[in-house]
Amino acid sequence: MKIERLDVNARRSRLVKYNGVVYLSGQFSDKGGDVASQTREALAKIDELLARVGTNKSRLLASEIWITSMADFKAMDEVWNAWVVPGNPPTRCCCAVELGDPEMRVEVMVSAALGDVEIMDV
Amino acid sequence: MKIERLDVNARRSRLVKYNGVVYLSGQFSDKGGDVASQTREALAKIDELLARVGTNKSRLLASEIWITSMADFKAMDEVWNAWVVPGNPPTRCCCAVELGDPEMRVEVMVSAALGDVEIMDV
Amino acid sequence: MKIERLDVNARRSRLVKYNGVVYLSGQFSDKGGDVASQTREALAKIDELLARVGTNKSRLLASEIWITSMADFKAMDEVWNAWVVPGNPPTRCCCAVELGDPEMRVEVMVSAALGDVEIMDV
Repeated sequence: MKIERLDVNARRSRLVKYNGVVYLSGQFSDKGGDVASQTREALAKIDELLARVGTNKSRLLASEIWITSMADFKAMDEVWNAWVVPGNPPTRCCCAVELGDPEMRVEVMVSAALGDVEIMDV
Repeated sequence: MKIERLDVNARRSRLVKYNGVVYLSGQFSDKGGDVASQTREALAKIDELLARVGTNKSRLLASEIWITSMADFKAMDEVWNAWVVPGNPPTRCCCAVELGDPEMRVEVMVSAALGDVEIMDV
Repeated sequence: MKIERLDVNARRSRLVKYNGVVYLSGQFSDKGGDVASQTREALAKIDELLARVGTNKSRLLASEIWITSMADFKAMDEVWNAWVVPGNPPTRCCCAVELGDPEMRVEVMVSAALGDVEIMDV
């Protein structure tokens, strides 16, 4: 078994792959804007990272969503629900916290299985 | 290897099973009440979800507990400590955040191993 | 497969080992002080726990860092960046929340692979 890391800087790897699971760092917008557009941008980054290791959002395992106020929940949730693959969402939890920059409205953490995994009918 | 999902809706699966590990969405009370009763209800939901895939709380791996104020810590902690299997608690962390509804006082995330796993003496 | 637990008390195990992965409870300072010294103490505890199961920080998979104010981010981050093994950081996310005690400034959660795992060049 081995560990693979993508997009390594002094602080973190954006993706770590080990033992059939990929872990992603919290993804968030670089561009600011409202919570819906920030959620879309974070999820697009997740799609891109998963694609680089040959998997995709149908293989998501667990997720955690941080927003900065529950007033943003509905707008975030609509973007999320339109993004997940019907029948194949990960587990999820969501809370409101203070994020790294006052412009940030949402940060999304996910883990996923590799792409050669069979999806069971639900 | 395959992924199995339970209780899928547009947003999340309540449980995802993959590679010997089960991940659960954040569990919380639907009934309101004080933090002790909300904790009991969340933990009962966890018991029920674990039982549906043939495992139980003696196989918990990691946990995270969200409360809305550290003033609720002691009452939550007493219920938790009475619930875990002596000698077999998971890892744990706990912080206070804003949760999805003003009535919510606690949300609990856990992962667990499958039921055919041997527990080592501690 | 089996589950191993270290430093078990009524509430949690400090470390759980299962299926090639070790999970650690949130680590934090017992001594108070500024966020830099509290971060150093938390990371030293992580080093010690990982060593007890034959692994180390070069095998970190995922991490999550809780601070109590983003005003502490920079000081925490400098200690963290000096601690991780260059080229081998885990995934990371960080937010500000209320922690278990008013003296606490930081809590760190990590998971890691076992020590016999090959690290890929990045």
